[in-house]
Amino acid sequence: MKNIVLLGGTGSIGLQTIDIIKEHPNSFKLYGFAFGTQVDVAKPIVEELKPEVIIVKDEQTKSLLQSSLTYDVKVYAGVEALSDVVTHPQVDVVVNALLGSVGLEPTLQAIRSQKQIAFANKETLVTAGHLVMDEANKYGVDLLPVDSEHAAIHQCLRGESLKELKRMVITASGGSFRDRNRNELIDVTKEDALKHPNWSMGAKITIDSATMMNKGLEVIEAHWLFDVPYNQIDVIMHKESVIHSMVEFVDQSVMAQLGTPDMRIPIQYALTYPDRYPYSLSKGLDLLSFATLNFQEMSFERFPCLKMAYDAGREGGSMPTVLNAANEEAVALFLNDKIDFLGIETLIQKQLEQHTKINSPDLETIISIDQEIRERVRREGS
Amino acid sequence: MKNIVLLGGTGSIGLQTIDIIKEHPNSFKLYGFAFGTQVDVAKPIVEELKPEVIIVKDEQTKSLLQSSLTYDVKVYAGVEALSDVVTHPQVDVVVNALLGSVGLEPTLQAIRSQKQIAFANKETLVTAGHLVMDEANKYGVDLLPVDSEHAAIHQCLRGESLKELKRMVITASGGSFRDRNRNELIDVTKEDALKHPNWSMGAKITIDSATMMNKGLEVIEAHWLFDVPYNQIDVIMHKESVIHSMVEFVDQSVMAQLGTPDMRIPIQYALTYPDRYPYSLSKGLDLLSFATLNFQEMSFERFPCLKMAYDAGREGGSMPTVLNAANEEAVALFLNDKIDFLGIETLIQKQLEQHTKINSPDLETIISIDQEIRERVRREGS
Repeated sequence: MKNIVLLGGTGSIGLQTIDIIKEHPNSFKLYGFAFGTQVDVAKPIVEELKPEVIIVKDEQTKSLLQSSLTYDVKVYAGVEALSDVVTHPQVDVVVNALLGSVGLEPTLQAIRSQKQIAFANKETLVTAGHLVMDEANKYGVDLLPVDSEHAAIHQCLRGESLKELKRMVITASGGSFRDRNRNELIDVTKEDALKHPNWSMGAKITIDSATMMNKGLEVIEAHWLFDVPYNQIDVIMHKESVIHSMVEFVDQSVMAQLGTPDMRIPIQYALTYPDRYPYSLSKGLDLLSFATLNFQEMSFERFPCLKMAYDAGREGGSMPTVLNAANEEAVALFLNDKIDFLGIETLIQKQLEQHTKINSPDLETIISIDQEIRERVRREGS
Repeated sequence: MKNIVLLGGTGSIGLQTIDIIKEHPNSFKLYGFAFGTQVDVAKPIVEELKPEVIIVKDEQTKSLLQSSLTYDVKVYAGVEALSDVVTHPQVDVVVNALLGSVGLEPTLQAIRSQKQIAFANKETLVTAGHLVMDEANKYGVDLLPVDSEHAAIHQCLRGESLKELKRMVITASGGSFRDRNRNELIDVTKEDALKHPNWSMGAKITIDSATMMNKGLEVIEAHWLFDVPYNQIDVIMHKESVIHSMVEFVDQSVMAQLGTPDMRIPIQYALTYPDRYPYSLSKGLDLLSFATLNFQEMSFERFPCLKMAYDAGREGGSMPTVLNAANEEAVALFLNDKIDFLGIETLIQKQLEQHTKINSPDLETIISIDQEIRERVRREGS
C-alpha cells in the first residue's frame, strides 16, 4: 500500500489521479489532498477517499470545506502547509499536479524527503531546472514524469544507458490551430483555442498546445529530466498523438512508446513504477482503427513560441524563468479576454528581449524574477 | 575484444555480420568462419579477417579453399567440426546464420558451452523449440535474436517484466505479393517472388515472406524465445517496415522499435548486447522522409501459411517440425522450378494433414521426422 499526497487535486491531472487511486484501492491510499478553492469539486472526492490531511488555498475555503464535510479531518490553509504534508514520514508518493511555478517549493521539499515524485508540474522544471535537478541528484530521487511525452521517453530509456542516446524526438499533436497559417490566427477566439483535437486537458495547457509553447516547455523539461543537451532534443509534428515520443540510440535503433490519448495511463505508470499495473479505464490502442500515422517537420516560423523556448533553454540562467512567467501570465490574460491569441507570443517575446540574463540564479532570485515578469506582463497586457 | 564464430558466413546474414565485424575491429575478432561451398565469396573475407579456424561443407571445398589461400589456417570439412569450434574456450559469441534445421545441433552445443548466441536461424527454434529453450534455460543462456522483429521485441522488453506483458505485435511487410489477391498468385514467377519491397535478404526467406510463412515461423520463434503463449502473439500488416515489432503491456502502454530496413543493425545489437555501439553503415531513420505509417489486419484466407503456422504452433509436439521441413523443401522445389508458387502451401498443408502428431519428440525423433517429411515433399513435388 502506497500513501499518496496529491497536490493540485481538483485540476485535470488531479482528478485523473483520483481515478487511478480508486481503481487500485488495495495498492493506493490517498493520504493528503491539496487543492485551491474548488470545494464543490473536492468535497465528493474527500468524502469518498477520506484523506488524513487536506490543504486548501485560504482560510475562507477551509471554513467552507469544514462546514460541509461529514467526517472529521485536519484541514490546513496556505501553501506553507504543503511542506509538512509532502515531507510526512508516512507518505510514499507525492503527485505534483500544481499549476505553474507555485509547485517549486513543495517539489524541493519532497525531494529532500526522498519521496517518489510523480511530476506533472513542468513549469517548476522550466523555471528552476538546475535547482530541482541538483537536489534530485543529491538525494538520489527519480522524478517520474506524468506528461505523456516524458513518460514515453522514460519508458523508452528503461534498461538503456543514457550515454548511448543519440537524440530524443518529442511528438506534437499541433494543438487546436495546427491546420491554420499565421494569418488565420489573427481572429481566433478563446473557445476555438480551447478545442484540442486529441487530448482532454486543463485550459492553460490547451492554450499552450495551441501556441506550441507547451512543446517548448516540454523540451526544457526533457533537458532537465533526462540530462540531455538541447541539440539532442527534436520536436516532430504527429497529428494522431499515437506515438507519444521516441528515443534514438547511437546504433540508429529507435524506441517509441505508443498509446491512447488518456493521461491516466502515464499517471498510473508514475504511481506504480517500476511495476506496471493492469489498466482498464479505457480501451487499449487499436492500431487498425486509425490505420495511418503521419509525421511532419515543425516550423519555427509558424510556431515562434517553440523557437523562443529552445533559445531560452539554450541561453539558460534566468531566461527560462522569464519565458515561463511571461507565458503563464500572457495565457491568463488571453483566457480573461484581455489580449488576443497572437498577443501571447508578442508579450513573451518582449519580456525575453528586455531581460538581462542572470547566470545560475538562486531560489530567491528566481522567485523575484518570476514576480517581476508577471507584474510587467499584467501591466503591459491590460 | 569478443571472439566471434560465424556459422553460415557466405549467406546474406553472414556477409552482413562480416560488415559489422569489420566496422568495429577493436571490439570484434572473427575467430571461426563456417560456410558451405562458396569459396569465391569466402576467400576475400578469409584473406582479410584471417580467422583461426575455417569449416566448410565437404572435402572438395576444403581442398579448393586451401589451394587458393595465401595464409596458413586450419580448415575442417563437415558439420561435425562445427561442434568443436562453437564450444572452443576462446570463443565468446556464436552467430548462427545457418539456413534451416541444420543449425540445431551447433545451437545446442553453443548453449551448453554458455556462449553468447546471436541467433538468425529461426528454423532451429521452430523445429525443436522445446529442446533448445530447455537447454537455454538450464544453462542460463540468452538467445539474442537477429531477426529484425525479434530484435525489436527484445528491445521493447528491456528493463521490463514479462509477467506484465499483454501481447506482442509482430509486423509484416507483406512480402512481394502483398497487393495481389489469391487469383493473382496463380501465374507468379520465381523472379516476381524474389523481389521483396523493403528488405534485401536471402532467397529462402524472401519466398517465405511472399507466402507469409516467414511470419508464421516468426510467431513460433517468438513463442519460444520469449516464452509467450500463442494467444498473446499477433501479426499486423505494416507495409513500410518502419516499426519492426511492438509489445503491449498490461497498462495498455505499447513499446515499439523502429528503424531502417537494414539487417546489420539487429546483427550489431546481438553482438554488442547489452551495449549499443555507434552505427554508421547506413543513414538513420528519417521519420519525415516517409511521412505516413500504415497498418492493416492480416487475413488467414489470403495467407493460409500464417494460419498453418499458428495451428502447428498451438498443436505443438512434432507439428512445427513438419511445418518447417515441408516448407523448406517446398520452397527449394519452387526455387528449382519444380512447383508453382501456390504449390508451396498445398504441399505443406498435405504433410500437416497426413502427419500423426508425436508429443514432446526428442532430438532423434525430430531429426527422423524432419528427414521423412523432406523426402516425402521432394517425392510429391517432382
